[in-house]
Amino acid sequence: MSVQRVTVLGAGSWGTTFAKVLADAGRDVTLWARRAEVADEIRTQHTNSSYLPGVRLPERLTATSDAATALEAADAVVFAVPSQKLRENLAAWRDLLPADAILVSLAKGVELGTLKRMSEVISDITGVEPGDVVVVSGPNLAKEIAQQQPAAAVLACADHDRAVAIQQASFNSYFRPYTNTDVVGCELGGACKNVIALSCGMAAGLGYGTNTMATLITRGLAEMARLGAALGADPLTFAGLAGVGDLVATCSSPLSRNRTFGERIGRGETMEQARAAQGGQVAEGVTSCRSIRELARRLDVDMPITDAMYRVCHEGVDPGTVGAELLGRRQKHEWS
Amino acid sequence: MSVQRVTVLGAGSWGTTFAKVLADAGRDVTLWARRAEVADEIRTQHTNSSYLPGVRLPERLTATSDAATALEAADAVVFAVPSQKLRENLAAWRDLLPADAILVSLAKGVELGTLKRMSEVISDITGVEPGDVVVVSGPNLAKEIAQQQPAAAVLACADHDRAVAIQQASFNSYFRPYTNTDVVGCELGGACKNVIALSCGMAAGLGYGTNTMATLITRGLAEMARLGAALGADPLTFAGLAGVGDLVATCSSPLSRNRTFGERIGRGETMEQARAAQGGQVAEGVTSCRSIRELARRLDVDMPITDAMYRVCHEGVDPGTVGAELLGRRQKHEWS
Repeated sequence: MSVQRVTVLGAGSWGTTFAKVLADAGRDVTLWARRAEVADEIRTQHTNSSYLPGVRLPERLTATSDAATALEAADAVVFAVPSQKLRENLAAWRDLLPADAILVSLAKGVELGTLKRMSEVISDITGVEPGDVVVVSGPNLAKEIAQQQPAAAVLACADHDRAVAIQQASFNSYFRPYTNTDVVGCELGGACKNVIALSCGMAAGLGYGTNTMATLITRGLAEMARLGAALGADPLTFAGLAGVGDLVATCSSPLSRNRTFGERIGRGETMEQARAAQGGQVAEGVTSCRSIRELARRLDVDMPITDAMYRVCHEGVDPGTVGAELLGRRQKHEWS
Repeated sequence: MSVQRVTVLGAGSWGTTFAKVLADAGRDVTLWARRAEVADEIRTQHTNSSYLPGVRLPERLTATSDAATALEAADAVVFAVPSQKLRENLAAWRDLLPADAILVSLAKGVELGTLKRMSEVISDITGVEPGDVVVVSGPNLAKEIAQQQPAAAVLACADHDRAVAIQQASFNSYFRPYTNTDVVGCELGGACKNVIALSCGMAAGLGYGTNTMATLITRGLAEMARLGAALGADPLTFAGLAGVGDLVATCSSPLSRNRTFGERIGRGETMEQARAAQGGQVAEGVTSCRSIRELARRLDVDMPITDAMYRVCHEGVDPGTVGAELLGRRQKHEWS
């Protein structure tokens, strides 16, 4: 499988950055933007000032707001739209996808209602096996990669050949992708980490320091690994770049929307105030904690941090109260 | 086993903080300080201004610079001296240790020359089985705990009863200890994390961002788990508070001496300049990378980050050069 022509659907910060990674790896890349003015700016000015201010995009990266044009003759198609919007977008793109194109997912989340992972949503609409979707994950803050800071990533696919094809298509001087066959684990790590980042922000907003953040990351990792085990993921995945790596990057960065949103709530802002301060959008973790909690309950998996975030974000419980409850869990052996 | 009278040997920031934790848990605690003026200040002013400025120590915490007085009738003895000084201190204390006292280690490191862990050093001198020493680890930045910020810790001992006795003696409103039976894993996590924190500091000094830090933490965790596997540790330990937890706390905190030292080296200071800027002391990771690297070579375990730190700190190799080498490792599967 040789991948030369790649289409990236979605021109947010990660979609645009991944398109740049592919172009810098020598591929012919077309980026689809929903808004024509964004596509025009990328095509003519080689910038995407709304999402990646100050970043110069490669000349060989082109853009369009017409999906049919974008998808023509693509060897690989990268989905880079928000997780809760993926299904409706896919419905519009389905008939335009070239047969045999390798499908790649950058979306991280669990769909509300269906409780499906993104590869399952892609499978529902396109008919491709979920294990044949290539999932991109890892400690990948888009802005840093767009600045060509060296980063490692994971490309997960049950079909090793597809992962290798995307590895070859994206490997460049600053982007180092590793292959992995555990799609379920990589997707869950990516979805769950936003919820844990929200909790780390909340702890910081309440005045807690680094020990607390490190404890939330550790216990957060344990609860996502429990969910993974129930869904057949490989526990090793959570110890790797798509688990610890992604989690640590998201929880420690001041660039993380989830962390910042949580910090506002921890400091006493209402959900409405925090939303307004972040351009009218809630953080991904606010949505994800609902679907992940539902999935955990269905599988009878204990996820105390996710549950606490749900109660703060959707039931109006005070962050200080859930914090005290989490700390009050009984004395025991670390793994009991 | 009931522990009421505890002696803490070593009045640095972690020893003093742990003595406070025990006193706040209702124990009668005597802290031994090498310098008489430090012991006097703790006993009469209830402060230790050299190590914990601004912290008020409990009235029931007393101090002395006479080890014989300190150790009289102790139910448990806590060793809180630097790892490379533990053996010579133990030699002086050996005949003063009450028979049947539970021995507890706060020291984190691998001894130069012998390549022994701290519980093994304690065993060498006292004759107690290494597995019977209780090892304290976890995301425990001393200054935060001294401020009574809530923290979780791990108490590892092959003899569960001893771990539980120390758990009961140290549990209080802000300190939450979990028991664990994996002494080897907890000690290795504690020793190796300083070296990884040094590398995170160096990366920051070289201008790298959060993705790089998260990647170093992830790959650092993998290399310490490999060393642990070779020495019979439980892999789960590295996913827990004494692994990820301690590592994340040490690598992310601006309070970490290892991180700060590495940052200076990354910015281009010499070892001498960095040492002078930190009060004439090298960071623990500078010493540990030598003994851990030797241990890894003896066991034929690949530890590329530790090796890179050794080359920078002890062979004068430029941090930029080892950084480029680490990034240049070949494309592969994440776990191969």
